[in-house]
Formats: sequence, C-alpha cells, structure tokens
Amino acid sequence: MNEFYQLDVNKVYDYVQQELNFFHEDADIECSEIGDGNLNLVFRVKDKKHNKSVIVKQSLPYVRCVGEDWPLSIGRSEIESKLLEIEYKLTNGKVPEVYKFDQIMYSTIMEDLTNYVIMRTGLLEYNHYPKFVDQITDFIVNTLILTSDVVMEHKEKKAYVKEFINPQLCEITEDLVYSEPFFDAKRNNISDYMIPFMEKNVWNDKVLILEVTKLKFDFMNNAQALLHGDLHTGSIFINQDNIKVIDPEFAFYGPIAYDIGALIANLIMNYLSTDVRCNDTELKNKHMTYLLDTIKDVMDVFRDKCIKIWPEVVKDNMVLRSPDFAKYYIDDIFVNTAGVAGCEMIRRTVGLAHVADLDGIEDETKREEARKLNVLLAKEFIMKRNEILEGKDFVNLIKNFCGKK
Amino acid sequence: MNEFYQLDVNKVYDYVQQELNFFHEDADIECSEIGDGNLNLVFRVKDKKHNKSVIVKQSLPYVRCVGEDWPLSIGRSEIESKLLEIEYKLTNGKVPEVYKFDQIMYSTIMEDLTNYVIMRTGLLEYNHYPKFVDQITDFIVNTLILTSDVVMEHKEKKAYVKEFINPQLCEITEDLVYSEPFFDAKRNNISDYMIPFMEKNVWNDKVLILEVTKLKFDFMNNAQALLHGDLHTGSIFINQDNIKVIDPEFAFYGPIAYDIGALIANLIMNYLSTDVRCNDTELKNKHMTYLLDTIKDVMDVFRDKCIKIWPEVVKDNMVLRSPDFAKYYIDDIFVNTAGVAGCEMIRRTVGLAHVADLDGIEDETKREEARKLNVLLAKEFIMKRNEILEGKDFVNLIKNFCGKK
Repeated sequence: MNEFYQLDVNKVYDYVQQELNFFHEDADIECSEIGDGNLNLVFRVKDKKHNKSVIVKQSLPYVRCVGEDWPLSIGRSEIESKLLEIEYKLTNGKVPEVYKFDQIMYSTIMEDLTNYVIMRTGLLEYNHYPKFVDQITDFIVNTLILTSDVVMEHKEKKAYVKEFINPQLCEITEDLVYSEPFFDAKRNNISDYMIPFMEKNVWNDKVLILEVTKLKFDFMNNAQALLHGDLHTGSIFINQDNIKVIDPEFAFYGPIAYDIGALIANLIMNYLSTDVRCNDTELKNKHMTYLLDTIKDVMDVFRDKCIKIWPEVVKDNMVLRSPDFAKYYIDDIFVNTAGVAGCEMIRRTVGLAHVADLDGIEDETKREEARKLNVLLAKEFIMKRNEILEGKDFVNLIKNFCGKK
Repeated sequence: MNEFYQLDVNKVYDYVQQELNFFHEDADIECSEIGDGNLNLVFRVKDKKHNKSVIVKQSLPYVRCVGEDWPLSIGRSEIESKLLEIEYKLTNGKVPEVYKFDQIMYSTIMEDLTNYVIMRTGLLEYNHYPKFVDQITDFIVNTLILTSDVVMEHKEKKAYVKEFINPQLCEITEDLVYSEPFFDAKRNNISDYMIPFMEKNVWNDKVLILEVTKLKFDFMNNAQALLHGDLHTGSIFINQDNIKVIDPEFAFYGPIAYDIGALIANLIMNYLSTDVRCNDTELKNKHMTYLLDTIKDVMDVFRDKCIKIWPEVVKDNMVLRSPDFAKYYIDDIFVNTAGVAGCEMIRRTVGLAHVADLDGIEDETKREEARKLNVLLAKEFIMKRNEILEGKDFVNLIKNFCGKK
C-alpha cells in the first residue's frame, strides 16, 4: 500500500475509498478513464445511486502521448495540487477543490466538475459565455497580480518561487512554444505545404527569430507571478454560470503575459477557425463578433480591474511611492501578451501539439489557408507588440489583417 | 562538538585543528579577529613559524553592526561557501579556495589571502592595478554569462536558481539599495544638509522614483545569472598581479547589471572623492584619468569578451539561430548597469551603509559638495541609462557632468 502503482479503472475505486472513504457502502459505482491529456491518467469514480463523484488524476513518469522514451518527473503532480490549493483560495473556488494529494502515488483526488464543458469545445460549437470575461479577468488578477512582488511580501514570494521551480515542464514550453516551431525541428507536427511557407515567412526571418528569442528569455528569466502555465481554452471548464480552470501542472513563477497570451491566442484561433468552418453567415458573424468583443474585453477589463484594486493591494514600498508604476507594469504585460499570443499561434500550427480549432477544419484548402493566415497574423503580433496597449489594438490587428471591418 | 557555538580568538585554533588538522604540531600560532564586516565574525589563524594561515568566517544569526534586533538567517554562509566553490572553478581561482564548510557551525575555513589589499583602500591611496580590467572582466564573463540561460542547460540553471534563492539577503538590497534612500527612511544615514537636497532632487522627483522602481523590479524578478550580489571595490582583494573576489553571501540569480553596476558606481565615487581629496594636481589628474580609463575599459572589454566567447559557449537553441541576440543582450546589460550604478551611488551617500570614498573626505564643505554632486550624477545615470551603450558613454556623462574635458 505504500508503494507507487499505476491506477486503472479496476483499482481506482478501492484506492479512493482507502484514502478518503468517500462513498457510501451501498454505492452503485462506475469508474471510467476520462483523460485525453498527454501527461497523466485521469479517472472519474461515480456513485450513480447518490450522484456523488470524484476525479482521480495520476501523473506518470513519462509523457503519455509519446511513451516511456520521454521521461518526466512525477513531482509535477505535487506542483499541480499545491497550485490548485493556492488558486482555490485566491479565486474563491475557480479551480477544482483538492480533496487529497498522495505523495506516494502522485495522485490527486479532487472535485468532479459536472455540467461543465471544455471551453474550446464549447466555442467550436459557437456557444457564448456571458460571465466569462468577468470571471477570467478576476482569475487573472487574483492569481497573477496578487502573487507578484507588487503585492506579496518579497521573502514569501521568493519561497513560492523556490517551491514552484518546475524545470521539466518549463522545458516543454521552452522547446515546444519558444523554439522548435521556429526551425525545422524533428518533433514539429507540420504539413508538407507548410514547410516552404515557414521557411520563407518564419524560419529565415532573422528579425522575427530575434524577437521570439527575447520572448523566450522573458519566459525563462522573468519570475513575475505564479502562473498557471498552460491557460488556453482547453484548460478552462465553462458553462453559462461559471468557470473552473484546470490542469495547472506547468505552474511556475514566470511572466504574467504568458498566461494571458496563451488565452488570447486560443480565442484568436477560434476566430480564424469560425471564419472558414461556419456556413451559417449570421451565426458566423455573431460568433466572430463575440470572440473579438471577448478578446477586447478580457484585456480592457483586466486593465481596469488592476487599476481598481491597485491602491488596495499594493505593498511594495516603492510602488506605493510611484503613481505611474501601475501603467508601466500593465503596459508591459499587454505588450508581452501580444508577443506570447503570436508564439502560441505559431506553435499550435506547426509545433508538436495542435488545436482542434485549426486541425478540425474539414476542408483541406480552407485548413491550409487558415493555418497560413494564423502564422502571418501571429508574426504581426510578435513584431508589432510594442504598439499593443489596449483591447482594441488586439482587435484592430486581427480585423485589419483578416480584411474585415 | 555537534552544536553551534560562537567562535572567538581563543577557540578558533582548536576549531580549525579539529576540522582540518591544518597546522603542524610545533606551530607558533597567532589568532586574530580581522572582520570589519557587518554580518560575520572573521578570524585569521596563522602559524608564524611555518608561515601557514587560514581564514575562518562564521555567520552570526543577526546583523552584527546592528545587533540581535536584526535577525538574519545563518544559512547565508552555506550560500557563500557554495558560491565560492562554483566561482573558484568558473574563474580558475579568482576567489578564495574553500577548505571546508561546516553546516553545524555555519563556518567556512578558507584560503588566507596574503599580500592583497582591499581595492577600495588601494584606490584611496591612488594605487593603480594594471591587470584589474582584464581580470575583473574575465571574472564577470565567467561567473555571469556562463551561468545564464545563454550557456547553461536550462534545467540545471533552474536547479541553481532554486539553490541560491536568498530571501533575507536580497531583502537587504531591496530595502537599502532600491527603496530607503529614495524616501526619508528611518534607517538612512543622512547628514542634515542632505535632507532638503534629497527632498528637492530625489524624493519628490516622481519620474526618478518610477525609474528606480523599474530597476527594483528588475532586481527582484530577472533571474538572469548567478550574481556575486555585492561586487563593489570593498569585495575585491587586489595587488599588482591578481584579484580575488570575496564575500559573496548576497549571491542569488539576478540581473547581470547588478554586479557590474555596483562595481562601476564605486569606481565613480572614488573618482569624485579623488577630485576633492587629492592636493597633488599631477597625482590627482593621473588617478582620475586612470579611473575613467578603467570604467571605460571594464565596460568595453566586457563587451568584447562576450562577443568573442559567444560563438564558443552559446547553447540555447534560439540564441544559436539569432545572430543579433548577443548585441540585444549586452546592450540591455549596459543600460541597466548605468541604472544600477545610479542607485548604488545614491544609497552610498544617504542610505544605511556608506563608503570611505565619500565619508572619508575630511573637509566638510568639500564632502558636502561631493555628496551632492554624486547624487546628481547618479540621477543622470538612472534617467539617461537608455543612451549608455559603450564605455565612453559612461565616461562622457561623468566628465560632462563634473565639468571636466
């Protein structure tokens, strides 16, 4: 019982009972493996009779989608469970509640989120979420600004930095987001027609490569706030009333822009995808307008909320004396958010891990066009990021580039 | 024997023998306390008969110059001994050799540096050191560039970042260098005549305060390289042939500019000091020219050496593909070096810890003038740092500001 073993649908109920004694004696139990992630086993254990359920997530010591050739520290599950506990408090429950983390099994038993869908899936079905902007900006402000040196006692912040040093997971991002998509790397998942296109527009563009390298170094060196580390639309469970952010195993102290940029990039890719996938003009226009409004509002509401809470939360004794520091700090986040969004868009097109928004475009010609447009728009975000300081700057760049009004 | 006790001149010989059995049986031992530092006890144990000696440095659990009211983790001695061992290898012996670090006593037994003087003292006596520029730029390149993400495998670098998280010592710098000198703080060591001067020129200058706050956040967040953390002329033992850099207990992963800026600031303060202290015009001109040449050469030789080793040492797969990244990276170091130098100059004038270069000016009027000039020149370095990209930019700013040609 005190040794690691790999869970499966036959073992997971006994495991949960032994750890938590969660279910009634007369429970009608159903266990299923629900994970589609690349790094972990994820199970739902459900008592159908009393409608009670938990999620069990176990890290495996390698990257699951690749196999045992790519070993990966299972210590990441400890980072994930610790971060969930911190963010649960900071956000008043906008992440799953952790019931138990088991250091021997590298397993987390946590709240089952029923009646939610993955936001990426919901957006691909043209659903809209009226509370999303307010809730995700609360999440960003509360998890990022509140864990920065603006607010935290600096020694306590450094203890967090130390606790969340996450070398292997950061390496995945450094390689798959900030490096390999920018040359002809073996692990890239790239269609043949994209190779000459990437050579011409990205791989041989030395100015672009320089800018991406700057962004990579910002990612590696700028210990600004306690990031989720993978905050795309596939990491957000959503419905009409609420969001729950999941899967923070990439957590570490990094640039705030990394979390926001990943989110914005994935909204943009849904926009480009909708434009070529949706055959109902009215629905298409409505959804694309919704996405642009969402992008604009996420950025502007984020800024507004930062400015609003700033006087209440600032503790650093120099920031307190520097009324203009807030604008400098937030401007810097905006600029780098645009840069991160560009890197994320490119890596999701030609890197190892793609998104359904682009790969799911059925028409081959349209898929190729969308991929190329996505890369060219991404370049604009990276190269023009210094001019992107408001929500409308994001939207105008997208609209102008895509030839819309 | 397995408990911490405070060393003194009567106990330190037995301690060394018990730990290392360093001295001959017939040794003629002389023990002396030689520390003038604020944080530690430092002893020399010398066998006069065989001319062998060691230094024993013990951390105390509080700031020595203030007393037990200011507790300080004695774990810093472990950081210091680890850093000395790393830098000894990286620099081919430009720091004292560590013979033994004792985790119970928080003591390091290390090489005794005979025939060296503290560089600050040497410069105040108008001595010149022909090998200094070459040796200190080697030191800077080897300890800083080689521990950055440009060169180090990124996971190994993160392990170093974690090992050298140094909250209490960083807090001292955050407070004493980047905060308290910029307002009327209780711990400031400030002459009455400086108070209205600082109010007018620094404390009420909101643009300056903003720029210092940016520099403070760079210090707190930019985990660029493994710094010495206190690389001023009082941390360098020197003679005509060699340098040895001592006292790295402030070591942590921070901005490269912090180490270089502290050094440049202390050379500048020696320049301003010489101008008002030295009554021999020829000697004065010669020494001031020597200092300006040294400042210029440290910066330019540093850049040249970076450019030279870059192709041999770069490992990051994006830096390898970005020929212009070196210039971007070094320019950024120059700009921030100027900014750091400005902060160091101000804190050494009105903050808690002063320097002999300024405080040792005997004539009161001249001391006041030098202090004021130092603060105003420091402001220029902070405010104009974006224009400082070559050694001559440092020198021209100093010369123009001091009305010299």
